[in-house]
Amino acid sequence: MKDDAPMEIPGYEDMLAAHERIRPHIRRTPILTSDYLNELTGAQLFFKCENLQEPGAFKVRGATNAVFGLSEDEARLGVATHSSGNHATCLSYAAGRRGIPCNVVMPRTAPQAKKDAVRRYGGTITECDPSTTSREETFARVQAETGGNFVHPYNDPRVIAGQGTCAKELMEQTDGVDIVIAPIGGGGMISGTCLTISTFAPETQIIAAEPEQADDAYRSFKAGHIIADDAPETIADGLKVPLKDLTWHFVSRHVTDILTTSEDEIVDAMKTTWKYLRVVMEPSCAPPLAAILKNKDRFAGKRVGVVITGGNVDLDKLPWTL
Amino acid sequence: MKDDAPMEIPGYEDMLAAHERIRPHIRRTPILTSDYLNELTGAQLFFKCENLQEPGAFKVRGATNAVFGLSEDEARLGVATHSSGNHATCLSYAAGRRGIPCNVVMPRTAPQAKKDAVRRYGGTITECDPSTTSREETFARVQAETGGNFVHPYNDPRVIAGQGTCAKELMEQTDGVDIVIAPIGGGGMISGTCLTISTFAPETQIIAAEPEQADDAYRSFKAGHIIADDAPETIADGLKVPLKDLTWHFVSRHVTDILTTSEDEIVDAMKTTWKYLRVVMEPSCAPPLAAILKNKDRFAGKRVGVVITGGNVDLDKLPWTL
Repeated sequence: MKDDAPMEIPGYEDMLAAHERIRPHIRRTPILTSDYLNELTGAQLFFKCENLQEPGAFKVRGATNAVFGLSEDEARLGVATHSSGNHATCLSYAAGRRGIPCNVVMPRTAPQAKKDAVRRYGGTITECDPSTTSREETFARVQAETGGNFVHPYNDPRVIAGQGTCAKELMEQTDGVDIVIAPIGGGGMISGTCLTISTFAPETQIIAAEPEQADDAYRSFKAGHIIADDAPETIADGLKVPLKDLTWHFVSRHVTDILTTSEDEIVDAMKTTWKYLRVVMEPSCAPPLAAILKNKDRFAGKRVGVVITGGNVDLDKLPWTL
Repeated sequence: MKDDAPMEIPGYEDMLAAHERIRPHIRRTPILTSDYLNELTGAQLFFKCENLQEPGAFKVRGATNAVFGLSEDEARLGVATHSSGNHATCLSYAAGRRGIPCNVVMPRTAPQAKKDAVRRYGGTITECDPSTTSREETFARVQAETGGNFVHPYNDPRVIAGQGTCAKELMEQTDGVDIVIAPIGGGGMISGTCLTISTFAPETQIIAAEPEQADDAYRSFKAGHIIADDAPETIADGLKVPLKDLTWHFVSRHVTDILTTSEDEIVDAMKTTWKYLRVVMEPSCAPPLAAILKNKDRFAGKRVGVVITGGNVDLDKLPWTL
């Protein structure tokens, strides 16, 4: 999306259409609960397990909505993106489902497991140097060569509409909650949640959880305009990216609050979830539980939907072993 | 149960009654699937996730059935067992649900996490030396002192009837499978499965999976009588115990086959499940998937129910990191 183009803000109907469009290709993931975690937090927690999607992340929703919304002519040229994270994997997965090409630009320093996952789903990788300049140049070249439809990892109305389907399922599966809490990086999940909840259940609060060491969204929220960090360092590797105009549109209007947590709190919450909920989730998923534990008064006695955003971790390098 | 007492063999009605009795206290755990694991194995796998029970193991079914089947007079004196595994945790959990005492005898060498779990659920631990003599003496003393109702970890009709409810749910949730495969240690889960499947769906095969390094059930099955190992060594720590008369009754009559797998195959299958199914499961849960991968022809094209028996692992000592 060009910087000077008017924003195309997705609406509630776009989210409903997305849900129908992606239904054959994604899972209506389960809600898991833990009596022990409820006791620990003083709240009634409902974990929406997007780590249990086939490619292991909620991003499959937005990626699938973009891929299956293309016309036949557009689809022929495939999709393209720059990402070394779950979006690359999910877009490759969705493109594979439709049988169209997927071109991913990722730094040569990206983890081997991420490269393997993209290739396993049929995606083509063009490597770049680990710098913004190289990434942008390389991506521009690949897109020009392939004519692929650019699907941004989060700042895309089709992607936001897709991510919003997660909160819709959460509300349906729980008969409603008082608060929905999710991690925030670029803001795709939070924006989708805002899109859905602001119409479906406007009295439900939306809280975003972020690492202190990558708290650009928190500072943006306080300042009233986007503040981007240059190269934040955090164990929550999926949450380093900044807000963009579309996601800021939603965050600034519909998020109730943004809570930050330290690296130790994130690692502890991640280990606690693995131990008591018994699912594999990424460090980037842990800020919500860490924030609840840190702010118990706020969540005490409330029904809280916690989105577990992904489960693609390096099992040889678990943070509590480092 | 005294060695010379006639066996009390649980029947199908006992399993149905158990399901009603335990319903308010256990979870109807989800079935998870993985397109990738289906591709890898050539089979259609349905993972029944007992690791997602509150105390993290299927043993909560049998333990709860025993606890809630006690009369008021019996319940007053509580329950007692010798176990350092999931049975101790699950029996403590069930006793706590009913508000009755639970006395557990476990070796002083048992992992701290297991002791903590028992105490967290309100169980009382009496430690013994890590020898059979000490365990039996200590248990006899504790039971005499407390008058507690002895609930064997697996060789108890109430426990077997309880474990059988797992296969009932699996069949209901999948509309039936061609094969059910589960790990085998003492034989409680397999016996419960036999109890249910032999009436509910007698054409469904029941396959047990065991470590090569603790293959006493396999050897018993081939020999036609119980063979017990003295002190088998295997990463699958929940599967070291021998068959007993009740479990042998079921295994010898209703199990189709027992397949064994090496330590490496077990660790690989465990890591593969964590990576692609994204749930935390114990090494003892991995022999089934390892056996499927090792015997693909046997499972090709079949609908296979795979019971994931528990999720209580030491996250600081994952086998692939050792």
